[in-house]
Amino acid sequence: MTTEWVDELAGRVAGAIDAHRLESRQRGLAAYGAVATGGVARQALTEPELAARRWLVQDFAARPGYSVSIDAAANVIVRRAGRDAGAEPVMTGSHADTQPLGGWLDGAFGVVAGLEVMDALDSLGAATRRPLDVVMWTNEEGSRFAPGLMGSVAYTAPERLAAFLSVTDAQGVRFQDARDAAVSDFKTHAGRQGWTWMERPLATPVHAYIEAHIEQGPVLESQGLQVGCVTAIQGVRWYRVTVPGRSAHAGTTPLANRDDAQAKAVALAHAVLSHAAHCGDERLRVTIGRWDCAPGSINTIANRVIFTIDARHPESAALDAVRAAMDAALPDGARIEVLQDKATVHFAPPLVALATTACQALGLTHRQMLSGAFHDAMPMAGFCPSTMLFAPSIAGVSHHPAEDTAIADLTACTRALAWCLVHLAEPVTDQS
Amino acid sequence: MTTEWVDELAGRVAGAIDAHRLESRQRGLAAYGAVATGGVARQALTEPELAARRWLVQDFAARPGYSVSIDAAANVIVRRAGRDAGAEPVMTGSHADTQPLGGWLDGAFGVVAGLEVMDALDSLGAATRRPLDVVMWTNEEGSRFAPGLMGSVAYTAPERLAAFLSVTDAQGVRFQDARDAAVSDFKTHAGRQGWTWMERPLATPVHAYIEAHIEQGPVLESQGLQVGCVTAIQGVRWYRVTVPGRSAHAGTTPLANRDDAQAKAVALAHAVLSHAAHCGDERLRVTIGRWDCAPGSINTIANRVIFTIDARHPESAALDAVRAAMDAALPDGARIEVLQDKATVHFAPPLVALATTACQALGLTHRQMLSGAFHDAMPMAGFCPSTMLFAPSIAGVSHHPAEDTAIADLTACTRALAWCLVHLAEPVTDQS
Repeated sequence: MTTEWVDELAGRVAGAIDAHRLESRQRGLAAYGAVATGGVARQALTEPELAARRWLVQDFAARPGYSVSIDAAANVIVRRAGRDAGAEPVMTGSHADTQPLGGWLDGAFGVVAGLEVMDALDSLGAATRRPLDVVMWTNEEGSRFAPGLMGSVAYTAPERLAAFLSVTDAQGVRFQDARDAAVSDFKTHAGRQGWTWMERPLATPVHAYIEAHIEQGPVLESQGLQVGCVTAIQGVRWYRVTVPGRSAHAGTTPLANRDDAQAKAVALAHAVLSHAAHCGDERLRVTIGRWDCAPGSINTIANRVIFTIDARHPESAALDAVRAAMDAALPDGARIEVLQDKATVHFAPPLVALATTACQALGLTHRQMLSGAFHDAMPMAGFCPSTMLFAPSIAGVSHHPAEDTAIADLTACTRALAWCLVHLAEPVTDQS
Repeated sequence: MTTEWVDELAGRVAGAIDAHRLESRQRGLAAYGAVATGGVARQALTEPELAARRWLVQDFAARPGYSVSIDAAANVIVRRAGRDAGAEPVMTGSHADTQPLGGWLDGAFGVVAGLEVMDALDSLGAATRRPLDVVMWTNEEGSRFAPGLMGSVAYTAPERLAAFLSVTDAQGVRFQDARDAAVSDFKTHAGRQGWTWMERPLATPVHAYIEAHIEQGPVLESQGLQVGCVTAIQGVRWYRVTVPGRSAHAGTTPLANRDDAQAKAVALAHAVLSHAAHCGDERLRVTIGRWDCAPGSINTIANRVIFTIDARHPESAALDAVRAAMDAALPDGARIEVLQDKATVHFAPPLVALATTACQALGLTHRQMLSGAFHDAMPMAGFCPSTMLFAPSIAGVSHHPAEDTAIADLTACTRALAWCLVHLAEPVTDQS
């Protein structure tokens, strides 16, 4: 088996990626939970999501050499068999759940892309030594059950499942009950359809994981590139800043006699935002997303302001500098709470290199880049060699009905994915 | 009638102001609407306020030479007769209504002080040519029915009453119905008690108006002064600033690609607050009391911030400069609405001079000062010569259960009020 031979096959599989079939499955999936006024409402383990998963699976489950499985986190996996049944699988996929009102691509594209690679392999009759798994992770978004990434976290760290089971949604439904209903639905349907299916143990080893996803940011589009090869998911720190003051009458209290929480908070926020704007590092992202002041009366000096800071950068030193800017400008009595502190997750350099080689081999314009958002690939990166491929997001929009990507760009990303998966799954000829 | 003789009598009346009687009536009044955990809940025309008014009036209504009246805005007036029944009265007083949870002095003190002057005059058997009226204005606070100052505005501009009558409170009760019930309650009670009473036409002429009130600010206390002689109620402008942006993911959107409403709003607010802090004019007051941002998610860039600016200064040029600072820093797409623009109301210089002379004659430490808050004396100033006397507020607190003033300071302010009222009411001797 020469590399040349594998490269040639990978190129043929990539070429067998069918834009029409891809678009058709992507649009078919978007019908599950479609909202009349636009967008998709398909939160985790709701009936629209369960129906969407059944629809995606049934195309493959009856094919020779395919099997389906479900695990204790209700993650659903479609397997295309490898010649070596005992070999660790190559895995791709993403999630089928959406935000309460999301778009048609976030998560969904990664599942559809993986299934399209299966179709392309089938169309060429290509065989691999390793099994190929397409996974639909449970509750990536975290909008129905908090936190997000439940399925991939539970898969890679089964000891964390127990805590998730007692989480309830806004209607008081426990995750455990929703999970049980989803597993029962899967088994009933699988039995009725005569699928080859099994229960999959959590933490079943995986050889490598590559997830395709829309970028959810403006970088690729603004640079006119087709594919992003993701090197890392950047670190994030969330802070809650509480600035106390003393309420008093806006008209009767001279500035010198005030303890104005709002004025103190504005000065602090200005200092932090100025640091971000002027530090000269385009990778630094600082966002103040919430701002509440009390008592909230036009003519009363605020006695408390609470605001949040979301700071992201791939290097902890840059995040430390943001914190130093906060501390340096911290007014009397104010306090900072750390709500979250996640270090940057680096993807496996050989996989990033493979993705880059795929784009070069296929003539796709591309760049290496960071992921600004979290993905199921984050927990997976601690479990097996992992990386991601990004497709450009039009205007950088996601989590919104307007979320979109050109079909040509979805197709290009899926071709790069196919090229990588063929290499990782180790193709075999009938002679081998 | 020489000035010396009047000064001597005024000094004796001021000396007859009785701190114990004053405190006793002030504490008695505080029992109406008293809240077990502190503070007073006695909103306009509620049963506690009606009961408080009845209690205040009944002490005087049965005395020889006294009468009571009510007008079409339910303002209640206690009159101490003058020798010249046709002379325009000298008026003092304030309001008995409170904020939903207010203190024991805001408004109440001005009524009690006026009644204490009547007691002092009676204790000396002093007679005046002009009648002396103590008024209890209706709905000064504006917390039950908006706007505030209803009673004094309707008295001085009767054409504005009609619009007030259709205003409803939070429970849907119309001001007209509350007014009718209050008038009916007054008439029933007056009839039953055998008071001399009458309906008073709105806009009945008044010779001069002096209102005693707590400062509601920290100036007198911080300077160790007993009395404030109020020269004007400073102008105020209220703005609502709307700053638009574009929502996007906090992690995936580089700063250069953002339209961050929060960052734009913070920069604007910082510019305006910096102008106020560094303009070197201690009379300028700038307050940002409200701040709302949408969508209000930690990891989403804000697409809209709305905040308010309350700017006050006695000179319009200083307020124009604040507006210029706002305009100069206004970010793209932001807009400013003017919610209120009230020019400074200047009190009658001869009355301010009289108040100052009173303090000098009585040996009270004092200063001329502005009122930062609105009072019933504001509409009155356009109706007849008017001014106010302030007593120090401990820690500048008001509209709060902790609102307080030393009894000695309330007494001092009431003595200055008595001195002024004696002069304005033109004392007569039995020989004159």
